[in-house]
Amino acid sequence: MQYHLNGYTFGDPSVAPAAPDHMRYDAGLPDTVDVLVVGTGPAGAVLTAQLAQFPELSIATVDRRAEPLARGHADGVACRTVEMFEAFGLADTLVREALWVNETAFWSVENPGDGITRTGLVQDVADGLSEFPHVIVNQARMQELLFDVAAKSPSRFEVDYGWQYVSQSIDESQEYPVEVTVEATAEEHIGTTRTLRAKYVVGCDGARSAVRESIGRQLHGDVQNHAWGVMDVLLVTDFPDIRKKAVISSEAGSIILIPREGGYLVRLYVDLGAVPEGDTEFRKRVTVEQITESANKILDPYSIEVRDVAWWSIYEVGQRIADGFDNLNDDARGDNQPRIFITGDACHTHSAKAGQGMNVSMQDTFNLGWKLAAVLRGQARPELLHTYSEERKVTAQELIDYDIRWSKMVGSRDADQPVTPDEVEEQFVRGGQFTAGLATRYTPEFSALTGPDTHQDLASGFAIGTRFHSAPVIRVADAKPLQLGHVHAADGRWRIYLFADENGLAEGSAVANWCTRMTADPASAVSRFTPEGTDMDSLFDVYAVTQQTHHDVDINAVPALVQPSKGKFGLTDYEKVFSAEQTNGMLLGNIPGVEATKDIYDLREIDRARGAVVIVRPDQYIGHVLPLDEFEAFDEYFAKFLTS
Amino acid sequence: MQYHLNGYTFGDPSVAPAAPDHMRYDAGLPDTVDVLVVGTGPAGAVLTAQLAQFPELSIATVDRRAEPLARGHADGVACRTVEMFEAFGLADTLVREALWVNETAFWSVENPGDGITRTGLVQDVADGLSEFPHVIVNQARMQELLFDVAAKSPSRFEVDYGWQYVSQSIDESQEYPVEVTVEATAEEHIGTTRTLRAKYVVGCDGARSAVRESIGRQLHGDVQNHAWGVMDVLLVTDFPDIRKKAVISSEAGSIILIPREGGYLVRLYVDLGAVPEGDTEFRKRVTVEQITESANKILDPYSIEVRDVAWWSIYEVGQRIADGFDNLNDDARGDNQPRIFITGDACHTHSAKAGQGMNVSMQDTFNLGWKLAAVLRGQARPELLHTYSEERKVTAQELIDYDIRWSKMVGSRDADQPVTPDEVEEQFVRGGQFTAGLATRYTPEFSALTGPDTHQDLASGFAIGTRFHSAPVIRVADAKPLQLGHVHAADGRWRIYLFADENGLAEGSAVANWCTRMTADPASAVSRFTPEGTDMDSLFDVYAVTQQTHHDVDINAVPALVQPSKGKFGLTDYEKVFSAEQTNGMLLGNIPGVEATKDIYDLREIDRARGAVVIVRPDQYIGHVLPLDEFEAFDEYFAKFLTS
Ligand SMILES: Cc1cc2nc3c(=O)[nH]c(=O)nc-3n(C[C@H](O)[C@H](O)[C@H](O)COP(=O)(O)OP(=O)(O)OC[C@H]3O[C@@H](n4cnc5c(N)ncnc54)[C@H](O)[C@@H]3O)c2cc1C
Ligand SMILES: Cc1cc2nc3c(=O)[nH]c(=O)nc-3n(C[C@H](O)[C@H](O)[C@H](O)COP(=O)(O)OP(=O)(O)OC[C@H]3O[C@@H](n4cnc5c(N)ncnc54)[C@H](O)[C@@H]3O)c2cc1C
Repeated sequence: MQYHLNGYTFGDPSVAPAAPDHMRYDAGLPDTVDVLVVGTGPAGAVLTAQLAQFPELSIATVDRRAEPLARGHADGVACRTVEMFEAFGLADTLVREALWVNETAFWSVENPGDGITRTGLVQDVADGLSEFPHVIVNQARMQELLFDVAAKSPSRFEVDYGWQYVSQSIDESQEYPVEVTVEATAEEHIGTTRTLRAKYVVGCDGARSAVRESIGRQLHGDVQNHAWGVMDVLLVTDFPDIRKKAVISSEAGSIILIPREGGYLVRLYVDLGAVPEGDTEFRKRVTVEQITESANKILDPYSIEVRDVAWWSIYEVGQRIADGFDNLNDDARGDNQPRIFITGDACHTHSAKAGQGMNVSMQDTFNLGWKLAAVLRGQARPELLHTYSEERKVTAQELIDYDIRWSKMVGSRDADQPVTPDEVEEQFVRGGQFTAGLATRYTPEFSALTGPDTHQDLASGFAIGTRFHSAPVIRVADAKPLQLGHVHAADGRWRIYLFADENGLAEGSAVANWCTRMTADPASAVSRFTPEGTDMDSLFDVYAVTQQTHHDVDINAVPALVQPSKGKFGLTDYEKVFSAEQTNGMLLGNIPGVEATKDIYDLREIDRARGAVVIVRPDQYIGHVLPLDEFEAFDEYFAKFLTS
Repeated sequence: MQYHLNGYTFGDPSVAPAAPDHMRYDAGLPDTVDVLVVGTGPAGAVLTAQLAQFPELSIATVDRRAEPLARGHADGVACRTVEMFEAFGLADTLVREALWVNETAFWSVENPGDGITRTGLVQDVADGLSEFPHVIVNQARMQELLFDVAAKSPSRFEVDYGWQYVSQSIDESQEYPVEVTVEATAEEHIGTTRTLRAKYVVGCDGARSAVRESIGRQLHGDVQNHAWGVMDVLLVTDFPDIRKKAVISSEAGSIILIPREGGYLVRLYVDLGAVPEGDTEFRKRVTVEQITESANKILDPYSIEVRDVAWWSIYEVGQRIADGFDNLNDDARGDNQPRIFITGDACHTHSAKAGQGMNVSMQDTFNLGWKLAAVLRGQARPELLHTYSEERKVTAQELIDYDIRWSKMVGSRDADQPVTPDEVEEQFVRGGQFTAGLATRYTPEFSALTGPDTHQDLASGFAIGTRFHSAPVIRVADAKPLQLGHVHAADGRWRIYLFADENGLAEGSAVANWCTRMTADPASAVSRFTPEGTDMDSLFDVYAVTQQTHHDVDINAVPALVQPSKGKFGLTDYEKVFSAEQTNGMLLGNIPGVEATKDIYDLREIDRARGAVVIVRPDQYIGHVLPLDEFEAFDEYFAKFLTS
């Protein structure tokens, strides 16, 4: 965590100094904004937290709700989401407050009539998949944490509750091409409409998205909805896995049990089967008492006694996906840029079984946020915006395919194709990457931001197109053990990791040559695209990792690009040079009897003889892997979409 | 982190539900309080954060300052202090924001005339000493974090700034025996005096303590002060250990260099030698430019260029200690109870070299806080209050003795007794426990709260009288790996750890018998002292650790005392039963190639055949170690000072 660069500041360092000329967020909904965010669910929350980092942008986030969500809705937080939260400085808090899903239990009936028995127990997150656990926390709290980040950002951002999106029209001849009509939902002004103009509009407005409708997009997929009775309850039970995630099937139906944050709360999803299309009365026929009764039948010989109901709902959902994620059809892309985007549940919905809704929605807007900011800040060409729909549509489709496979397994009562408990467990383990949110891979076939795998062998463990998988290193200047990936803040910057070959970092080394070339040659991407008058690392945040021990690095002989002078006092940033030592020590709680046997070169299969350059996008995905001596490929990668 | 016990609550779980009838802290200084805390330095901050946890108590904290401290003063945070911060839920935040002191470098002149060279580099905290690092953060921020805890507590506590303590008188016939006169220091009312009455007054008012003076106590020790030029600066330098703690001596003098939080700030202590008593003009003669000039001479051949001064001061301090830490002389104890206490710098001061001032001050009031609360809440007899002075005076004296040894070493320019760099390094390593704040041991000779070491061999690694040294375990109900010591919140409760023998926890085991006896026998300490109408764990928070794997524990066959029904809904608390499995996994960031080879029985040398009962005080110190079958010794330990 870096602060005090431009002088000593007092107080909570997670509160950024306010930008003097940021937009006023206490003045009501403005007439024009760079981005209008519609909806404050997980998708809208991430997008707002991201855009608020750039006080030079004007943003409005509206929601038809009168106030923030307080309970219910989703609760599963995949490892990948925690990694993203780390970029917002929130992972510690999240992980401290949340329940950790360490194991998932499988229960079913082995001898009909005997009731359920435990047929399997699986470590939920495979070793090494992520440095973070799979956690459970209320969606409301997730959103609160993100909006808190926005409030502490240099923009001092606040949401405008009580406005509902109604319609839009686009006029490209205007500076703010999209005119949006919104309607007040708050008591005093209810029903009043007004317009505002935006450069971009992002629909984060959920499954019944009005933004989606206003651009003429439709959801395709399942015709039937699958219904679940969901309840967050305080209960007493003799069911032994009450504090573990459990997938339970019996003759009487199936349950997904999710223990919740705080040690006492439990969520139960009780399968209510398919809802015939058009049966709008379905939810009215079900009561929380009935759900509890069903749960008790399924749990036999165990039982629950509900003492307090915090929230309950009938959650009806199908697996559906929109035919496009922005307002342009593919044949209309050409010279046009998208102006309206849809994200999250507005463009894809998933079954409750896979626990993906909240996670994939947040990844959508984490993907979109930096792109919008880069275009609006004049750092990237508008073509970059096409990649949102390209990348996220394929990802959503893959997830739906996985979800369909998995949903067929859980609680399947298909007499023709019985599924054995072992098959369920096997599918669960195989689906681990999906559940953890780590299966996403933007391949070059569908993403213009992904480089070819020509040099993938230099760092096989950093698969191009996947998220940068962190590993421990030691920071040279202060000998601090840390997770390399945790330097990656959600600040719109690109991270370039230079993994040194055996010659280390000193003059004449491949890393030193790379740095010299990037700073000295005006044609290099770093020279061309770094905005004038800003710190050397304002767009490309370059780090070096060496195979020398941290004691063997002479920090006065390190290239300036990885130890830059910054800020108004020209201070040296010493936090960019790392040693790839094996580390247990403090990172691991300083526990004797714990041995580390691998360093980051081992863990991520980096070529020790040749080193590697790993390019990581602002949303933590790996854009490219290159050799330390291929300068042009590096420049070309960025020349495709950056602008100076 | 446990919450939702009495129903679902929304928002930040570190904000406790407000107690409906807590004292109003927006109504100005009250006329009577249970405790008056004088001073908002580290000592006053810890005491306030502790007492605020009990909304049934009325507290006032005053300071003559008009507002919270913003910069300067102490900055070294020992491992022990971070452990204490964990009990207040603050360790994560502290560790994230702070600089970590991972290594300490020693620099001196080997060949006169050549300038300084590095003569040693030592891992700062020895492996296994604490699960937390030694960190550096501004005293102002430490205080802010603690007062934030007080504000989020059920009391919703706020400090009364702008009041200066003047004098006191005691009248034991009154319900609030101490009458205190305070004087306003805030602009509008400056000079106005008023009185208020308190049951207890705690002087946390620093080295020039008016509270100390008002009870006729004096500091003894050094007649001379040692002066340091201290500056927090933003600088540019070629000194290679600028981001490590460094102890530097040359012919020109000596420096202690402390890199600071945020990555850029640096503190330099430049030794200015002894200040003759009575030389009140000394500090006026020194400027920050002179300190910088001295620093540059000492650092030769390296140099610093100061770009911004955040704070600087002449810090003059001697090693002194008061003749008593409360208002009673030993011959006056008898039936009297102390009414006025002095803590922190008010009763002992330390050199800047040992970096103890802030840490030991906080440990003082962490020691005192729970005792005051226990007496005021009717849980303990007033005699308990004598133990504060008894325990902390010896501790302070030991620390001063260590400080004197260490100070003689660092920057010693005594030509008769030259100290070699190796000797300095050796002394530093030997002093590691002191520096980490872990040398404190309340032996039975001077602490009535420490049991005899009769059964110490049952758990040699939990030395009676020292702080409970945490180690990793797996929580049975949810398979979560965690640090056992982190269950210990600063809530005034006693922790009882039952380490099972080989028979585990089920019926008939020694642990089960222990639990049955404690709950069934009305003469047991647990039955006698647990306040009626409260949860079973409201005073004794009992945990069980077993040698079985977590899969082998049947949570439906665990004694009720370690899986109690709680709160208004009678919910089960599943977070008190642990397995002593070796654990790397998530606790260690889920890194493959990391092996754990020891469990908590190995690490803390617990007798596997016989198990052990470890009694831990509310301030995390071990009161006693007993066998699982010695019930009376357990009861007697508590009967000495608890009351029902
Ligand atoms: C009632 C409910 C219960 C759910 N229960 C579960 C569950 O049990 N398990 C699970 O995994 N997932 C559940 N989900 C789904 C999960 O919450 C979503 O997958 C996830 O929140 C998607 O995030 P999002 O940001 O895309 O949309 P949402 O979280 O749906 O957020 C959309 C936001 O947009 C606002 N909005 C809608 N229309 C407009 C408009 N025209 N103008 C302005 N604002 C508008 C809404 O008020 C809302 O705040 C539930 C969703 C809902 C709505
Ligand atoms: C100016 C200064 C510089 C220091 N620099 C260093 C340093 O560089 N390194 C280091 O290790 N330590 C330093 N210290 C010492 C370190 O801050 C203390 O060891 C530590 O703060 C002790 O904590 P405390 O709570 O006992 O007292 P303090 O932190 O001194 O707090 C005492 C508080 O009581 C208040 N107070 C005093 N008198 C009254 C009164 N009559 N009525 C009401 N309120 C009163 C004060 O305003 C103050 O807020 C410094 C202390 C001071 C005062």
